[in-house]
Amino acid sequence: MTERVLRMGMVGGGQGAFIGDVHRLAARLDGQIQLVCGAFSRDPENCKATGRQLGLDLDRCYTDYQDMMLVEATLPASERMDFVAIVTPNHVHFPVAKAALKAGFHVLSDKPATLNLDEVKELAKIVHANDTLAYGLTHTYLGYPLVSAARAIIAEGGIGKVRKVFVEYIQGWLAGEVDNKQADWRTDPARSGISGCMGDIGTHAHNLAEYVTGKVMTHVAADLSIFVEGRLLDDDGSALFRMEDGVKGVLSASQVCVGKENSLSIRVYGETGGLEWNQEEPNTLVRTYTDRPTEILRAAQGYLPEAVQAGFRTPPGHPEGYIEAFANIYLEFGRALQTQGGVKAGMDAAVRGMAFVEALVDSSNNNSTWTEISA
Amino acid sequence: MTERVLRMGMVGGGQGAFIGDVHRLAARLDGQIQLVCGAFSRDPENCKATGRQLGLDLDRCYTDYQDMMLVEATLPASERMDFVAIVTPNHVHFPVAKAALKAGFHVLSDKPATLNLDEVKELAKIVHANDTLAYGLTHTYLGYPLVSAARAIIAEGGIGKVRKVFVEYIQGWLAGEVDNKQADWRTDPARSGISGCMGDIGTHAHNLAEYVTGKVMTHVAADLSIFVEGRLLDDDGSALFRMEDGVKGVLSASQVCVGKENSLSIRVYGETGGLEWNQEEPNTLVRTYTDRPTEILRAAQGYLPEAVQAGFRTPPGHPEGYIEAFANIYLEFGRALQTQGGVKAGMDAAVRGMAFVEALVDSSNNNSTWTEISA
Amino acid sequence: MTERVLRMGMVGGGQGAFIGDVHRLAARLDGQIQLVCGAFSRDPENCKATGRQLGLDLDRCYTDYQDMMLVEATLPASERMDFVAIVTPNHVHFPVAKAALKAGFHVLSDKPATLNLDEVKELAKIVHANDTLAYGLTHTYLGYPLVSAARAIIAEGGIGKVRKVFVEYIQGWLAGEVDNKQADWRTDPARSGISGCMGDIGTHAHNLAEYVTGKVMTHVAADLSIFVEGRLLDDDGSALFRMEDGVKGVLSASQVCVGKENSLSIRVYGETGGLEWNQEEPNTLVRTYTDRPTEILRAAQGYLPEAVQAGFRTPPGHPEGYIEAFANIYLEFGRALQTQGGVKAGMDAAVRGMAFVEALVDSSNNNSTWTEISA
Amino acid sequence: MTERVLRMGMVGGGQGAFIGDVHRLAARLDGQIQLVCGAFSRDPENCKATGRQLGLDLDRCYTDYQDMMLVEATLPASERMDFVAIVTPNHVHFPVAKAALKAGFHVLSDKPATLNLDEVKELAKIVHANDTLAYGLTHTYLGYPLVSAARAIIAEGGIGKVRKVFVEYIQGWLAGEVDNKQADWRTDPARSGISGCMGDIGTHAHNLAEYVTGKVMTHVAADLSIFVEGRLLDDDGSALFRMEDGVKGVLSASQVCVGKENSLSIRVYGETGGLEWNQEEPNTLVRTYTDRPTEILRAAQGYLPEAVQAGFRTPPGHPEGYIEAFANIYLEFGRALQTQGGVKAGMDAAVRGMAFVEALVDSSNNNSTWTEISA
Repeated sequence: MTERVLRMGMVGGGQGAFIGDVHRLAARLDGQIQLVCGAFSRDPENCKATGRQLGLDLDRCYTDYQDMMLVEATLPASERMDFVAIVTPNHVHFPVAKAALKAGFHVLSDKPATLNLDEVKELAKIVHANDTLAYGLTHTYLGYPLVSAARAIIAEGGIGKVRKVFVEYIQGWLAGEVDNKQADWRTDPARSGISGCMGDIGTHAHNLAEYVTGKVMTHVAADLSIFVEGRLLDDDGSALFRMEDGVKGVLSASQVCVGKENSLSIRVYGETGGLEWNQEEPNTLVRTYTDRPTEILRAAQGYLPEAVQAGFRTPPGHPEGYIEAFANIYLEFGRALQTQGGVKAGMDAAVRGMAFVEALVDSSNNNSTWTEISA
Repeated sequence: MTERVLRMGMVGGGQGAFIGDVHRLAARLDGQIQLVCGAFSRDPENCKATGRQLGLDLDRCYTDYQDMMLVEATLPASERMDFVAIVTPNHVHFPVAKAALKAGFHVLSDKPATLNLDEVKELAKIVHANDTLAYGLTHTYLGYPLVSAARAIIAEGGIGKVRKVFVEYIQGWLAGEVDNKQADWRTDPARSGISGCMGDIGTHAHNLAEYVTGKVMTHVAADLSIFVEGRLLDDDGSALFRMEDGVKGVLSASQVCVGKENSLSIRVYGETGGLEWNQEEPNTLVRTYTDRPTEILRAAQGYLPEAVQAGFRTPPGHPEGYIEAFANIYLEFGRALQTQGGVKAGMDAAVRGMAFVEALVDSSNNNSTWTEISA
Repeated sequence: MTERVLRMGMVGGGQGAFIGDVHRLAARLDGQIQLVCGAFSRDPENCKATGRQLGLDLDRCYTDYQDMMLVEATLPASERMDFVAIVTPNHVHFPVAKAALKAGFHVLSDKPATLNLDEVKELAKIVHANDTLAYGLTHTYLGYPLVSAARAIIAEGGIGKVRKVFVEYIQGWLAGEVDNKQADWRTDPARSGISGCMGDIGTHAHNLAEYVTGKVMTHVAADLSIFVEGRLLDDDGSALFRMEDGVKGVLSASQVCVGKENSLSIRVYGETGGLEWNQEEPNTLVRTYTDRPTEILRAAQGYLPEAVQAGFRTPPGHPEGYIEAFANIYLEFGRALQTQGGVKAGMDAAVRGMAFVEALVDSSNNNSTWTEISA
Repeated sequence: MTERVLRMGMVGGGQGAFIGDVHRLAARLDGQIQLVCGAFSRDPENCKATGRQLGLDLDRCYTDYQDMMLVEATLPASERMDFVAIVTPNHVHFPVAKAALKAGFHVLSDKPATLNLDEVKELAKIVHANDTLAYGLTHTYLGYPLVSAARAIIAEGGIGKVRKVFVEYIQGWLAGEVDNKQADWRTDPARSGISGCMGDIGTHAHNLAEYVTGKVMTHVAADLSIFVEGRLLDDDGSALFRMEDGVKGVLSASQVCVGKENSLSIRVYGETGGLEWNQEEPNTLVRTYTDRPTEILRAAQGYLPEAVQAGFRTPPGHPEGYIEAFANIYLEFGRALQTQGGVKAGMDAAVRGMAFVEALVDSSNNNSTWTEISA
């Protein structure tokens, strides 16, 4: 639990958007975070309607995020927002985050952090220059307690020295031409950056691989593809990769695997064991051994690592899902804010994520040459 | 969405309780219901501490549920609670529900509705005598949209005339002697009623079978067991059953199936098809055909029946779980309250549930003789 | 391996039959049994054609099984058949087995052993009266090594005292009217006996439950059904049952569960653990524990009980299936013949199987009264 | 069925070997192929003992495969072997195959065909120079009818233009140092060739990808690894690949994925659908669609492509496994021999397989540069 209810402002998430709703569900679930203001849309109608539906004071519904920063900063400490949640399309993440941080507000941003590595490094400079500022990136999938369990098991040597990682995030919803708001900006370089699929979901795979293994990914040899004619950004890609300490792996991300919904999976094999997890069955973690039967580890069970026991809201067999994972990201950000002050881990992951995307694109443009990820 | 945010009072759910928290998570998730008061515990310390943690006005934290009814009834309509959520152990459901209904408050009760059939019939009399009163029972598992999808598919003839039903709810947590608050009252006749396992979870199986098939269960031939020595109530049981229109089936419930978490499953076979669902993988519904491949129907997909499309909060592949299902029960109760006034369906299911338990116990006590369920 | 290649005669299994081919595949697989003669069909054309295709000496292809017994009995010991495999429709099992046994030939019969309890008891009398005669029943599913592994684990106390058994055999192929040779005799009382579905597949479930638990089933309370109009024998049924030592359970068999292929499954729960197995994924055995993760036991792994290690032909991950299981039945029968002489276990199981069917039908005809299985 | 029973000679497969037994089980299963002679071992004791156990004429058990070719060639056409099955360690495949082909015997060889590309090209020259000679490679996994079903569905446009392929063959048995006969030669360059894992199992993955898609793999960018210290050949590797017509993919093979048994899987996604298959559950083929539920296609069902219907021995739900798949390879080779005379498809696949391995090793040695597969 957080010490007191935290006050959140939101940029983006007006009517018609998708991810804003999910952020609000997640923030609301545990009753520890209260939405107090928002710049939901530049369209005043949409902005007010959204605020009204959310029961907000309409004076705190802003059509311009800059105004929000200015006005909120003038409110008494007991009222003004504590942090800004950024849920806009990718290209707006950077200016909003920068404005918020400059105005002294903590930031919890949807990913990717920015459109490119330069931008994220600029954010990092601001964040690291200020001891108390916190920056978080909603790498939702780290919010699943069994992902943390996998990390904990590996950290304590449960599978021995890590050797090989398979990580994959495949979807099918962009297999044809898609005509909707979600698809539009994701396939537009101006709003998505230099990569489509890899920026959108490949970054989750990268982040998951680093988080679970506890190793930094150092090099990639990538082959990105555009399968749907006329599309301007990659809708598929695979990469060989290398991590610290001799770990090797394969990462794939695709939005043209027809029939796949949201299949993010990771499999890690070490010298003495393995772990396998898939986001679509998030309450199960498979553990393999050399000479013993494979085990099915299940959410909320007492045999899981101590460190993850607090992450469950319901007993075994009562499935928790994506919203709960997302809520865990919010809870953890809120708790970190209150107990540690300026939290930098999210910032560092954000920089590495953007560096990963740039390295992928560079490698793919250079005939899949091994390319260093320089964060 | 509900028309306006509804105000909820809660009885039970003080610190140390389990299900109260789940109700609050569920009620809070969609921002349509606000907890405004509670009689969380008869212990004043616990009651206040719970209220404080929940950010309640401490004046509206009552140590006596009767007081709550009295005081809240005197508040202006714009402030007083709209309905009471009952989350106490079983034996307290009846007196609280009765008091609430008599005071004119709608009731959303955890199940089973009461300790026995007489009590629930008394409640039903009150509810049916008052056009505007609503009574709901949190048969959580009906909150999964794919359960409603199964019902819709069957209702529109998707599997032909229903023939055979297998329904099962098995757990393992009471396989040995268990010494905790949850186990204590569930195995105590004074607090649980005439049945342990069947009252606690068999009723969910019964309710699910009736809901999905749209048929009333009419007769049972049951064999209840106490496997753990010294226990006073059944911890396991199976029953043959018959429903309207020639449907036959088998129902099992057990709390001694070691290693099972919360495995509620139903399989229904008709003349031309079948449907299979398991609560532990709630986002998947399996559909079988005579001469076509088995299909895997998945949550939030456009091909699901129109009627269930509104039940999902996230796109396909973003798993929703138990809390979301529970929240759907709250949402539906809230919406029904606002649009239809006095809602009686929950009351009728509650009566049938208690009649089912009594018939089971009678049958088991009479050498498994076929026994009518007289609701 | 057997000591020498055994010589087999076959009754039934002419062209157009199904199970005869499977028996031959099974007998042939390990090179330990040679088909030397057969009464494949009463139609001389069919009989010869079958023999020719199988590369048999046509002099040893008989149109009358009685002739086969007579003639073969006159051949020198080094040439005459060692045993008779019976693969006819059910109603012919008895007369052939009787004739073979009386002629001094061992019998390996498809199941059920006979049309009714009286017949099988008559066979048992013959078999038990002769020290050297062997009788086996091809309860194919016992040929899966993981079924034996389950039995071994339970026998050595691996799940504690057994409490509850769920056993089920469901298919969908008779959900409508079916017009073929296989369906014809199975739904004809004159050829199938007093039960259709239960005699055909329910007996496998019964046999599996007794084999795995090592307990005798003593009582049933059954509800058999005919769902397809005009059919004369049960095509579905469920029964509560009781075994020795307080074990309770549920058995279902059905041929009208649309879309199910050949789903024979058993789940057994004891005081400290459980085991789950399904014939359609026969190389996996699930083992549950009280406070440890569920384990996936896999065929051919070194951690399986020593007693079953010899039952696999290929290493882990190289799936063995139905034919291999069937071949194991043949191998075991052959080995038993050579090492133990007159083998009676199959006879006893055969008698219990018929007694089980009679008890089921009696119970179902008597309003599902608990009925003793008197073998 | 074959026209007449074919006579087989075998090289390799003495006592203590693994794959020889499997070949014999496969060849024997359908009664269409008879083992008549063998050069099972250079050790006379072993060779005779093997022959005796198999019921062979000991005069036809040769300690030298050259002798076998010479002697058998002198036998009358009605007695001499029709073809040679080669089941030795890899390095002996080539000399035996060459000797057999030169002596005019057809060859069915275990894979890989030879130690290197030059050798296999030499074989190809011999085979292609002789109209009647047949050469087959036991790419066992193509013997699963559902693999052929996948190929047929793709060939008829069932998933649209193919875009992306994931193919993977992972095992765990060489995760540590292993001290047995099977492991010894597989990790010895002199007996295994230039690659360990990729030669042993990566070739199956390559072959499966080409067979299922009907496309030739043209380029690879590979990263092979030796994870176990002191090992001389790769025990793991991944490669990006490209096929004709713009198909892209990822191929991984590993023998150090702890706990994996024999997990060969392929997933193919086209413009309008996808197919997924895993060797460890070979009787299931998953088919995905754009706007329809995923389907579970099952072995022996009438809805499968006509072309594969003959490949099943048992009805749906009676699992067929590895031995049956292997037997299908034998059956098909036998039938092809009899109906088409000199069969060259196996030879071509063999050449492509060796070229694939060489390209992988070259690429991996050249910093994962894209390398052409020049068959």
